[in-house]
Amino acid sequence: MALYQRWRCLRLQGLQACRLHTAVVSTPPRWLAERLGLFEELWAAQVKRLASMAQKEPRTIKISLPGGQKIDAVAWNTTPYQLARQISSTLADTAVAAQVNGEPYDLERPLETDSDLRFLTFDSPEGKAVFWHSSTHVLGAAAEQFLGAVLCRGPSTEYGFYHDFFLGKERCGTLVDLCQGPHLRHTGQIGGLKLLSEQELFFFHELSPGSCFFLPRGTRVYNALVAFIRAEYAHRGFSEVKTPTLFSTKLWEQSGHWEHYQEDMFAVQPPGSDRPPSSQSDDSTRHITDTLALKPMNCPAHCLMFAHRPRSWRELPLRLADFGALHRAEASGGLGGLTRLRCFQQDDAHIFCTTDQLEAEIQSCLDFLRSVYAVLGFSFRLALSTRPSGFLGDPCLWDQAEQVLKQALKEFGEPWDLNSGDGAFYGPKIDVHLHDALGRPHQCGTIQLDFQLPLRFDLQYKGQAGALERPVLIHRAVLGSVERLLGVLAESCGGKWPLWLSPFQVVVIPVGSEQEEYAKEAQQSLRAAGLVSDLDADSGLTLSRRIRRAQLAHYNFQFVVGQKEQSKRTVNIRTRDNRRLGEWDLPEAVQRLVELQNTRVPNAEEIF
Amino acid sequence: MALYQRWRCLRLQGLQACRLHTAVVSTPPRWLAERLGLFEELWAAQVKRLASMAQKEPRTIKISLPGGQKIDAVAWNTTPYQLARQISSTLADTAVAAQVNGEPYDLERPLETDSDLRFLTFDSPEGKAVFWHSSTHVLGAAAEQFLGAVLCRGPSTEYGFYHDFFLGKERCGTLVDLCQGPHLRHTGQIGGLKLLSEQELFFFHELSPGSCFFLPRGTRVYNALVAFIRAEYAHRGFSEVKTPTLFSTKLWEQSGHWEHYQEDMFAVQPPGSDRPPSSQSDDSTRHITDTLALKPMNCPAHCLMFAHRPRSWRELPLRLADFGALHRAEASGGLGGLTRLRCFQQDDAHIFCTTDQLEAEIQSCLDFLRSVYAVLGFSFRLALSTRPSGFLGDPCLWDQAEQVLKQALKEFGEPWDLNSGDGAFYGPKIDVHLHDALGRPHQCGTIQLDFQLPLRFDLQYKGQAGALERPVLIHRAVLGSVERLLGVLAESCGGKWPLWLSPFQVVVIPVGSEQEEYAKEAQQSLRAAGLVSDLDADSGLTLSRRIRRAQLAHYNFQFVVGQKEQSKRTVNIRTRDNRRLGEWDLPEAVQRLVELQNTRVPNAEEIF
Repeated sequence: MALYQRWRCLRLQGLQACRLHTAVVSTPPRWLAERLGLFEELWAAQVKRLASMAQKEPRTIKISLPGGQKIDAVAWNTTPYQLARQISSTLADTAVAAQVNGEPYDLERPLETDSDLRFLTFDSPEGKAVFWHSSTHVLGAAAEQFLGAVLCRGPSTEYGFYHDFFLGKERCGTLVDLCQGPHLRHTGQIGGLKLLSEQELFFFHELSPGSCFFLPRGTRVYNALVAFIRAEYAHRGFSEVKTPTLFSTKLWEQSGHWEHYQEDMFAVQPPGSDRPPSSQSDDSTRHITDTLALKPMNCPAHCLMFAHRPRSWRELPLRLADFGALHRAEASGGLGGLTRLRCFQQDDAHIFCTTDQLEAEIQSCLDFLRSVYAVLGFSFRLALSTRPSGFLGDPCLWDQAEQVLKQALKEFGEPWDLNSGDGAFYGPKIDVHLHDALGRPHQCGTIQLDFQLPLRFDLQYKGQAGALERPVLIHRAVLGSVERLLGVLAESCGGKWPLWLSPFQVVVIPVGSEQEEYAKEAQQSLRAAGLVSDLDADSGLTLSRRIRRAQLAHYNFQFVVGQKEQSKRTVNIRTRDNRRLGEWDLPEAVQRLVELQNTRVPNAEEIF
Repeated sequence: MALYQRWRCLRLQGLQACRLHTAVVSTPPRWLAERLGLFEELWAAQVKRLASMAQKEPRTIKISLPGGQKIDAVAWNTTPYQLARQISSTLADTAVAAQVNGEPYDLERPLETDSDLRFLTFDSPEGKAVFWHSSTHVLGAAAEQFLGAVLCRGPSTEYGFYHDFFLGKERCGTLVDLCQGPHLRHTGQIGGLKLLSEQELFFFHELSPGSCFFLPRGTRVYNALVAFIRAEYAHRGFSEVKTPTLFSTKLWEQSGHWEHYQEDMFAVQPPGSDRPPSSQSDDSTRHITDTLALKPMNCPAHCLMFAHRPRSWRELPLRLADFGALHRAEASGGLGGLTRLRCFQQDDAHIFCTTDQLEAEIQSCLDFLRSVYAVLGFSFRLALSTRPSGFLGDPCLWDQAEQVLKQALKEFGEPWDLNSGDGAFYGPKIDVHLHDALGRPHQCGTIQLDFQLPLRFDLQYKGQAGALERPVLIHRAVLGSVERLLGVLAESCGGKWPLWLSPFQVVVIPVGSEQEEYAKEAQQSLRAAGLVSDLDADSGLTLSRRIRRAQLAHYNFQFVVGQKEQSKRTVNIRTRDNRRLGEWDLPEAVQRLVELQNTRVPNAEEIF
């Protein structure tokens, strides 16, 4: 224990303690040699202890993963990293740390007992904190070695990290406890993970905290996702609408958001509202009397749309879809990349229907989810949440609705769980937990019944018998936040996008500068067909270097054009996995890519 | 004159004075008979006066139309309505009044002298006022005749009109002067113009003043316009991006908007900003310290995007396009339908380029305008605005830029005007005045140089020689506000949309109920191909009535399916102009429509 105390005093100056490998100091000062020695001493003791524990009880333990999967492991021996590799090599590469029974764990710290295990990747706030915290050590090491700095506090922040250094008298001894780990396995992970933002999809800026700037390639992916959902809407009888962003708070009072959700909403000051009302008519027309607020959800706007004129049973089910920008005043501490934003869009739709139509509508919603997730390569699990203790509305209506949802789930045929009493106060719901290609769980889609909004907005339609009746409202989303889903996909595919979503579809590579004009023509043909195509005519690099560069950038296809291809107006095609598809007529190749894009296949490179 | 005074006392109770024909009162009260007699007296006097003036000097006068066209007319004889008919029958049908040398004129009031003439249609605030003001008279007439009301004030308002009535003792004599006209030619115009909103494209709601709710069919048109511009972007090397809506006012200070444009911006109160900062960390993370404001323009966001990492000359010209929602706090008095909104989207793009690239970029911008306007059926006229007296920046740079713009305009080959000294303080610009199919002028597109924003944001790129250089910024838009252009198109085509924009592309009509299933299949085939298709299976109406109804709704095509068509899986096609195209295989018909839609032809019905 004395050894440990001594170590604690020294480790803040060091980096090897965290096993983050950096350049070796050529002439280590006395205290650094002492620290390194102390580390080796501690490390050896720790290794010995683990070995002895492993030998003493070599028993099998049960490790539960999110989503319910269970894996066997050996106590004091198996590490989270070993389990990650077992699940998928991509998970092993992208995981930055683990949570074991809620406690942060280095990926290489052996598991000790039956545990709930969750992997942290860069997409979670905790994962980011680990990543950035490890990054501070790299920065610290550089400052210590090259500037002779004494390291003070080096925390991760909301959007990155910083490190306080002391460049004069030593005085940071009390800060030892600030570094609690866990850390990345090695510094190589920092460079490796950076690749994701190097695809230039998006960035963040302090002048618009919590909002994302989508660069051209990110916008490409974004628009492809929206176009996908739009195509499904056309097939499935949804009608897209566009509703305003700013509404009088009277609307939010009517919907109940002002009472329950006001803290998360942005209120808007109209210009001149801070000035006293003027007697001049010019000023009074400018004066906007209502307080306004940015919409956090689309549902009240859709209720206004339903109610703006009399409705008949013939118009039901009315399925209104909206990609409108939503704003929610998330606490800055809760912001995290694309996962939690202050401004985002949803593939949001509201279905107004009769009670009789409910079951068929729910089934269609479930089918919609399944189709979309299949294309995206996601598996999913459903859960029915029934009435909570403080529910509002008629218990008979609830009974009936819950029965309908159960029936729809049964007919649908996928397994589902019952979360008794976990519904919203305004209606029962079906939660959708999806698992991405790396097996990571996400909550994206939702299907919720709502008996309250139709009441609050006094929504009515003329029934078949002539009397006015009240519709049921279904809130549903498949992608959920488009931004968040884009982030999930970006990490899930590790930069290797399927063709239809890819921001790097084709690069045209002329063999020599004589083919540059023809290469530009080929690029233009691809662009005219709506495909993303770039040109790599960098004459400073050899052909093979440019082909390698295209592979590293994960272009789905490379069109190489030499003298022969130019004269025959063909292209020589390679995939990003270096499969050679040989020579193709340019228009035929473009046509084939358009087909593969339009059918949204996951493996265009294999079936070209 | 005494006669005129007597008339003025009585006319407020009447309606015939305004020549708005309404139902005849069966037993007119004494005062009404007196009023009618007075009107006839006045009317006859006026007709006589006009005839005598016309006889006295039957001279030709010159009438100038907006856009510069001149027409001959006969003094005291030719009416604005006659001239409207001469220009186009649609203009004659949609014009509600005229402005003659800035003065409001009834369409049937003869012109007296050489004049500037402008037609008012419902799309202008003045036109709306005339329309709604005339509508108040219809309302007034009904109230007078059926309720015995005494009419008080009946003004048009921002979104419509109302009428104050006095149902007891008479006391509104002082309000005589409030009705200054002009009025519609006849009440039939009110019903006729209503048809536009009956297409169910969009509506407005008091809970979101100045913002438009686009209904499914309006959203269809909106998305078709955006898709059109997106397709052009792909051909023309523009990169679409998505930028946030909310920014710190620090950004607007940097861009200069906060100084010059603050009055037109919506500032946003983050939640908790009205509470004192708390000592608890949970609250302080929620506390958003910067004031935020909704963006009224995209340019500063694009400057941040340019500046977010170092740039090289190889990346220029960088053309960033954005359909982001813009908010401007227009005075409520200035709001007018889709013409002036508080929330809208533009086909906004910013080009960052070198001075050497300027001429080619301006020419491409002009070519972009010409292509798009040709597809939309608009003609246009260009004007170059050069440096104003208070211009900012280097006079040499201005000289050079103005020369470049002149050269680009010359090369472009269309006529253009010079507006000396009419440029913005930050750079010269090309104004684009377009004329729609009715000859009405609109300002939509713009091309503006900006030397100031690159300075304010310290934008730089590494030049070919290695030194840092400053790019030039071009602001450009072709449609301008998508909402506004949609409104222009809606009125310009009078509900008869070209196929590619149409919210009423095809209606499928089964002859009998036995063909309803097949009709639904046909509808689904059309929808799956991305076409708008409806079904009219109303068994309460005969086939010919349903065909007539489809024509009145301006469906581009009708697919009629009877027993023969069902058995052969064909459709019998008619156009909205009742041309019979005969029997077609269903898949071939769908394919042909997709082709005609994708090529954006104006006359799909003729060349099907």
